[in-house]
Order: sequence, then structure tokens, then C-alpha cells
Amino acid sequence: MGKVNDKWICGTAFHTPQRGVLEVLDEVLIAVDETGSISQIVRNNEPRFGEIKAAADREGRLTELADSQFLLPGLVDLHIHAPQWPQLGKALDVPLEVWLQKYTFPLEAKYADIDFAREVYGDLVDALLANGTTTAVYFATIHMEASLALAEICQQKGQRAFVGKVAMDDPDQCPEIYRDSDAATAVSEMRAFIQRVREFSGGANALVQPIITPRFIPSCTDALLQGLGELAAETGCLVQTHCSESDWERDFVEARFGKTDTEVLRGFGLLRQSTVLAHSNFVSDEDLSLIGKAGAAIAHCPLSNVYFARAVFPLRAALDRNVHVGLGSDVSGGHSPSILDGCRHALSAARAREGGVDPSLAAAERGVANSAIGVADAFWLATAGGGEALGLPIGKFEPGYKFDAILIDLDAPGSNLRHWPTLDGLDDVFQKIVLNANRANVMRTWVNGKLVYAAQV
Amino acid sequence: MGKVNDKWICGTAFHTPQRGVLEVLDEVLIAVDETGSISQIVRNNEPRFGEIKAAADREGRLTELADSQFLLPGLVDLHIHAPQWPQLGKALDVPLEVWLQKYTFPLEAKYADIDFAREVYGDLVDALLANGTTTAVYFATIHMEASLALAEICQQKGQRAFVGKVAMDDPDQCPEIYRDSDAATAVSEMRAFIQRVREFSGGANALVQPIITPRFIPSCTDALLQGLGELAAETGCLVQTHCSESDWERDFVEARFGKTDTEVLRGFGLLRQSTVLAHSNFVSDEDLSLIGKAGAAIAHCPLSNVYFARAVFPLRAALDRNVHVGLGSDVSGGHSPSILDGCRHALSAARAREGGVDPSLAAAERGVANSAIGVADAFWLATAGGGEALGLPIGKFEPGYKFDAILIDLDAPGSNLRHWPTLDGLDDVFQKIVLNANRANVMRTWVNGKLVYAAQV
Ligand SMILES: [Zn+2]
Ligand SMILES: [Zn+2]
Repeated sequence: MGKVNDKWICGTAFHTPQRGVLEVLDEVLIAVDETGSISQIVRNNEPRFGEIKAAADREGRLTELADSQFLLPGLVDLHIHAPQWPQLGKALDVPLEVWLQKYTFPLEAKYADIDFAREVYGDLVDALLANGTTTAVYFATIHMEASLALAEICQQKGQRAFVGKVAMDDPDQCPEIYRDSDAATAVSEMRAFIQRVREFSGGANALVQPIITPRFIPSCTDALLQGLGELAAETGCLVQTHCSESDWERDFVEARFGKTDTEVLRGFGLLRQSTVLAHSNFVSDEDLSLIGKAGAAIAHCPLSNVYFARAVFPLRAALDRNVHVGLGSDVSGGHSPSILDGCRHALSAARAREGGVDPSLAAAERGVANSAIGVADAFWLATAGGGEALGLPIGKFEPGYKFDAILIDLDAPGSNLRHWPTLDGLDDVFQKIVLNANRANVMRTWVNGKLVYAAQV
Repeated sequence: MGKVNDKWICGTAFHTPQRGVLEVLDEVLIAVDETGSISQIVRNNEPRFGEIKAAADREGRLTELADSQFLLPGLVDLHIHAPQWPQLGKALDVPLEVWLQKYTFPLEAKYADIDFAREVYGDLVDALLANGTTTAVYFATIHMEASLALAEICQQKGQRAFVGKVAMDDPDQCPEIYRDSDAATAVSEMRAFIQRVREFSGGANALVQPIITPRFIPSCTDALLQGLGELAAETGCLVQTHCSESDWERDFVEARFGKTDTEVLRGFGLLRQSTVLAHSNFVSDEDLSLIGKAGAAIAHCPLSNVYFARAVFPLRAALDRNVHVGLGSDVSGGHSPSILDGCRHALSAARAREGGVDPSLAAAERGVANSAIGVADAFWLATAGGGEALGLPIGKFEPGYKFDAILIDLDAPGSNLRHWPTLDGLDDVFQKIVLNANRANVMRTWVNGKLVYAAQV
């Protein structure tokens, strides 16, 4: 019957436990224990179903979904820049290196102001929870207090998060107003940041974790990369950075080291289990092998790549080698905070990669064969794929997994979704949700078994 | 002071009167006369501004926008299949020819049921108005009563619309259950449809107009194409069809006629002033010249093209030749009914065309140079460009233009837009709206001066 304090949810759930595989859990009971984990799932054809449901209802421990409502795993955003939230949808008409120097570094420098940081970060985390993002892997800024504030806000609002105080010390690439003073200081501040986050969040298995965050190779000196690699080994903290994002960035690293980003990161001890590499569009086959062997992960950011990479990440090639991949919004290089939008962008980017862009070429010469992915692949990237990337038990409905979930209502006010019960099977409903649900359809969001967002209706 | 019965709106408006040119109308008064046209625009630096505003307010004829609210021209959808609304977001994983035969023709055949048609079409027009689409150019189905119902529903709900009863008679390409019986019958039914729509809607300048709609060349016999060309000359009705959409379709027409789609349509008298050609991805340079000379227009459908064309329409090439172009949602070949989404897809498709898709190639070899467009180009396509395509005075705020407009509220419940007055200029606000406003931000929609949608808050 489940433990005495379990909560139960009854309804139809969709998830993609393996890549590309949709499983419809048609009218099931899901039990969530006091630690926020799923303790059992009872199918409606099991004899005990009716009895359990009745008991849970009687005891006030049952949440029952309406016919228009469906449960999905919460969305995982593997790459988002929290301080760039105010410039969402701005200034996407310039190359990466200009965008950084002219718009982004000056904006990030403002987070020396802790009040500004608290205002922005509180608003951002609220917005992400309302869009169904239950786990976010954040770049913050170089500022200790503002980065701690982001971690505290995630903790307080109940979002699962990895928060990175950003390290960037190279005077040639970082502006005077926005850089670490030197490598040694940056490393010791990162160590202090890790300790302080772990203190208030409750240690290595807490909801909110620190993550070691060298911005990207061009903005870091060798000494900083070396020091952060050693710090990762010392603390066991995850690592995130940008990798092989654009022609310019790839060429810069090649000119400085005579190596690829992946090789350089590996050399400094930063290519570790669950290291999150944003973008990675220009990785070589050998790089993909190294990433796979290390158990590192790629945050695929298809929308941002349209603007700054001018190429499409070889997603299928990475997946077919069993490299960990999930999705990143890359706010504000991407102009949408929604990881459901991210699914759509991953689908269309993969299609564009396969089909090519130039109709004056013959079909066979236009694109890259075997690049397209399906709707269930895209949703897997957004959920279980992201969970695997981080080594966390999230992204599917299975006993032992955390109950991180969203409730999608097809009939929510402001919905663009339509369902015709006589025309749509449940698999069609799933496709419609992934391709067209918007923020209005996200009625509730749970993280670790706790309701962290409920739409006002 | 404006005419006695003019209504006034006071606030800040954005529009793109020429392609790529944003004009910010900062705190202006717009007068709308009884015919739904803009009679004058008064800037706030004109001496009479204060007096007019006070008078309009006193007389109860003033609508004043809040600080978080902005007025934009209504959105023009040049290509949408009304009967495909129930399959929005479904079945996008197969090629065009399979998608038509397996999913789309069977669904469209259901509109023999007039009750089903009324249910779907009422819901669709409501949804489009809520998304800010003030003008839609519809494909309906082959059914007389259902197509008339769509026109009546547009009229009744106040949406500007061109409605096309679809003509398709070739037994080799159209299924038994869903085709016109023969060319002569199809032409005479089209003539009757035109008359009936013009009767109830009020003639050639009415809000709702019929449009001659051969589905596409492969589904029509020569006799049907010939008859519809003559009917267009006889009635002065606009024409719409699909043109050069995919490799398969282009090759089919080439094999049948030894000519391009554009040449064939021209030969049958269907390439006329304001003929709307959906897609046109595979048009040649000569085709573009013919389309330009005829004053015909292209409905660019970037999202649908990702799924069914496997190539990106040469948008900049068409615009640089002054060919009329606007945006189409192509519901349900596209999975979003929002023309603001259409702007984003036009931007990213053009970017992908320029940047290319395959990072293993050198940057200069990847894409097609000079393909990218800017945010103001995309919005122009969605508004004034669409208006020019149809030869209608819509899509900008100028005296003599129709007041078709939407009110965007940055602070609407469910908004993902954020503005920081200390960081954002008005041009930034415009970019943020185009790149990230969703249905929730559309608070009101006016067509022809009449309020046709107001969000419930
Ligand atoms: Zn990034
Ligand atoms: Zn179409």
C-alpha cells in the first residue's frame, strides 16, 4: 500500500525512459515518499489499483489529474546564463566575440550590485519554474555574493540547480571591469564558493550544488585552468564550460595550444565525469571519443547555435556513440527560456542539418545524411538525457527516481494545444505537447516531490 | 481635432513601414474613423497633442495604454490550412507526399460533416485572433458548405480573411474519398463559391473575400488549371496555390510539363497580381523574375519548410528583387499558429541558410552568403510585407491604412518577456517582443478598427 506518508498522484503520464522511446503510463498511481523519490508506480490493471487509490483519497494523500491533464518529467536545462536574463531577446545580430565584449560582459559586470542580482535572479527562477524547468545548470558571474544569492534563491524556491561562480582571468580577453584579478585568487574564491554553497545547501547530495565554471578557454590563463582542474579533483565538484562553439573560438584555441578545446580541457583535468560542455559544435570525431570515455556531457543549444555558431552540432553522431547529451537554453544567446522550445529547436536544427539549406543543390548534396531526430528523441534530451548527463536520478518516472515533474493541461487558458479525442491517440497528444505546449500549459511544477509552482487560474 | 466619431488610442507603437526599418511612434495619438481606417496620427511634440487627448478623454473616446503596453500592427498569415487545425503538432515525421495521402487528405475529407467544420473553424479563428493574426489567407477543403462556414465564421468574428474552397480533381493524385468529380464541376462550384461569399460579405472590398485555390499542380488536371485561370480573369478574385515546395513536387511538375511550377501557373493564367504562392523554395532566378513582374507574392513558411522542403527559401534574393513576400504559418505543416513564432523561424532559417549546417566544412563553404535578415525585416514580413503582398492597406500605422492592430503587454500574466527600463531602449523592447512574446502577451486584437479579442485578466 505504500508507506504511510507517501503522497499519490493518479493520472496519465508520458516519459521517454530510453532515447527515442515514448512510454505512455495510462492512468497510473505514482507514490512519492518523504525524500521526494518515487517509491512505486501502480498500473491500473493491477488488482490493488482501486484499493490503493481509494485509501489514498480517503486519507487526503491523493492528487487526481483531470482528463485534459498529463504528467511529464520536469525539464532539464543544462546550460543557462542567469545574469543574461535581462537581455533575453536583445542584441542577437552580432558575432559572438562582439556580443561578449559589447553587451554581455558590461551587463554581467553589473552583478557587483547584490540588490540588482537578487531582483533578476528571483525573477528568473520563478520564470523557469513556470516554464517547467526543474533542473538548471547555471553560469552566474565572477561575483561571490551575487553567485551565492543565486544558489540561495534556487534553494529557497526549490529548484534543483548547479550554480557556477564564473572564473575568467585573462587580461587580453576579459575587460578591466569584469575579470578575476589573477588565477590564484580566482581558484581560492572558487574553493570558498564551493564550501559556502555546500554549507547552506546541505552537502554533496543537496538540491543545490556548486559547479566549477571556467567561462571558456579564451578567457582563462593556463594557470587558472590548471588550478580549477586540481580543484575539481580535490572537491569532486562537477565542471562546466563552453567548448568548440564557433569558428573564431575553435581557431583561437587551436592557435594558442595547437589542440582542440576538448584536448586542452582534458590536459588540465577539466574533462571529467559529468563535465558539462556547452555547444561543442566543432568537436572532431576524436573529441567525441574523448568526451564519451570521460563520461562528460554536451549541452546542445540549438537556438543559440543558429546565432553564434553558424553550424549545427552533430547530435546524432554524438548520440550514436553514447555520448551524454542534453539540452541547454543558453539564455541569452538563445532567446527562449523554455526547454520545450528547446525540443522544437533541436528537432528543426537536426532536420536542417539533414536536409541542408541551399535548394540550388541536388537533394543528396545539400545536408548531412542521418542527422534528423524524432519527437521522442528531443524529449529524451530534455529530460532523461539531461539527467544522465548530470548523473542524477531524474527525467523519468521509475521507482528510485526523484519526482521532478510538470503537469500539462491541454485546456489551460491561453493554450494553443488542441486535442480531438476521436482523432488523437495518446501518442499524438504527446507529440502535440512537445511541439506546441507553451508556458500557459504548464499548470504545476514539482521538484523533489514538492510543489514549487502552480499557475493561478 | 478629428471627426466627431473617431476613436483615439494613445500610447507607444512600433511598426516597420519599410522593410528592415523600425519606426518607434513614441507616445502618439492614433485616430480611427467609422470605416476602420486610421484618419490621423498626432505626435506628442505637436502643440495640439494635449488638447486633442483631453477632449477625446472627456468625450469617452480615448483608450490609453499602460507603460508596459505597446501597439503593433496586426499579423498577416499568408498561408494556413484551416481544416488541418486538429492535427497541429502531429505526424511531422514523414515526407510531404506520405503526409498528404496518409494523414492530411483523410482528415480534410471529414469536412463533409458541416458540424465538425463549424466546431473546428470557430475554435481556429478564435485561436488566431488571440495570437494576433488579424488577416489570414485560408485553404479550406473541397466542400462547399464547410468552406462557406469558414468564411461566415471569419466575418462573424471579425477577422480579415481570404477563404479558398480547394480545387483538386486529378484521380491519379487525389484519393477517391477526397477530390472534385471533374474539372468542369470544380470550376462551376468555385464560381458559385465566389458568388456566395461575395453576397454575404458585401462584395469586392469586404472584410472576407473568396480566393481561387487550386491545391497544387500535381493534384489538378490541365483542364482544371485552365478553367480556374479563366475564372480568375472573369471574377478578379485573387488566386493562391502551392509552388515549388519540395524536390518531389518540383520534379513531378518538371516531368509532366517540362517547365517549372511558376511557368506552368503563368501559362494557365494563374500567376496574377497578388497571387499567393506558398513556399516557392525551389524557384529559379527566372521564376523569381516572372513572379516579380506579375506582382504575385510568396508566402514564406520557414517552419513547415524544415519538415517538408529540406531546403531554405532564398528569401533575401527574392526581397532584393522586390518580389512581394510575407509569412505563412502553414498550419499544420508548421506546428505553430503564431506569426510571431513565424518571425523567429524566418530569422533562424535565414541564419541557417547563411551559416550552413555542417561544421566539418570551412565557414566560407558552409552556407549561402548574404542570406541573413534582421528582426525588423522579419516583422515587416509579418505585417506590411504581407499587406503589400495582398494589395491591402494594412500592416502599418499611417493615415489611410486600416486599423488592424495588437496590444502587447510586457507584464501580462504568463509573460516570458522582461524589460528593465534602465537597461532597455524602445528598440530593445521591440526586439524582445518579436523574439519572445507569446500568446499570453497579446492582450487585445483589433481588425478594421473593431476590438475582436480581449484577453481575460
Ligand atoms: Zn553559454
Ligand atoms: Zn500549404
